[in-house]
Amino acid sequence: MELKESIRIIKDFPKEGISFKDVTTLLKDPEAFKEAVDGLVDYLKDKNIDIVVGPEARGFIFGTPVAYALGAGFVPVRKKGKLPGETLTVEYELEYGTDVLEIHKDAIKEGQRVAVIDDLLATGGTMESVVRLIEKLGGEVVSIDFLIELSELKGRKRLCNYDVMSLIEYNI
Amino acid sequence: MELKESIRIIKDFPKEGISFKDVTTLLKDPEAFKEAVDGLVDYLKDKNIDIVVGPEARGFIFGTPVAYALGAGFVPVRKKGKLPGETLTVEYELEYGTDVLEIHKDAIKEGQRVAVIDDLLATGGTMESVVRLIEKLGGEVVSIDFLIELSELKGRKRLCNYDVMSLIEYNI
Repeated sequence: MELKESIRIIKDFPKEGISFKDVTTLLKDPEAFKEAVDGLVDYLKDKNIDIVVGPEARGFIFGTPVAYALGAGFVPVRKKGKLPGETLTVEYELEYGTDVLEIHKDAIKEGQRVAVIDDLLATGGTMESVVRLIEKLGGEVVSIDFLIELSELKGRKRLCNYDVMSLIEYNI
Repeated sequence: MELKESIRIIKDFPKEGISFKDVTTLLKDPEAFKEAVDGLVDYLKDKNIDIVVGPEARGFIFGTPVAYALGAGFVPVRKKGKLPGETLTVEYELEYGTDVLEIHKDAIKEGQRVAVIDDLLATGGTMESVVRLIEKLGGEVVSIDFLIELSELKGRKRLCNYDVMSLIEYNI
């Protein structure tokens, strides 16, 4: 099966000019969902991953089955105010203004080997902030893996110090 | 291992008087996380589940590995404005005011067997709305399964027409 075919393109969402990659059509298809998770797991399975980190909310969707299949733990990175324990925060830039991401201070131990999973690599700005949080806690970012990469936005360049992998590429 | 021991209790979060059940300590522990997912999977594995539904955002965390392990598809129920396709919406009551949940209209086919997974059963109000969305699409709600049940809040009673299972119970 061609994984790309199970992704639906929705024009002008969330605003005009954006061609949104809708992964819900992949998720509801058991074969496509399994193929996507297995693709990420195959890439990571010999890398001794202790912890999979996934940013809210679509990072949870692929991060948790990958963590489960690898026998790793899962650590969520969330928007401000959602995590109940002591957190480390990082501010990141949006098109207009800034937003804040948080991780629990005790989520990752010094030297743990971490894979970060998200659904989509665009400019890489959010992911750069996620990586900063992990490294501040002493985690080693072994790999950063995406279902989809929008290659023209050059997020891979922004993350050039890391091992970056994506299963599906779009040139828009 | 006693699964309950891996859950952290945080007092007065998100507000005074609430004793918050923090599942992030369970998630980051590979054994506890695997035990929790396997517990849900064991309960569902002979029920011929086609689709696992999980509400945003913590429902994604347990719903997707369960869907993966069952060989089922996954369908997210999200807050307003997050799903890009045509949606069905339901309004539900919060302590103050109301909120809206959405599901894609084409997410579930007539007669598909559905399990709904969430982290926590409290009053059952959100879950009642999720079930309504699934049934409007023609899905059959075969089981509703939680990691945690706060039994004194009697959510199980509200969902008494359904098969409800939880792995861990608290009497507060």
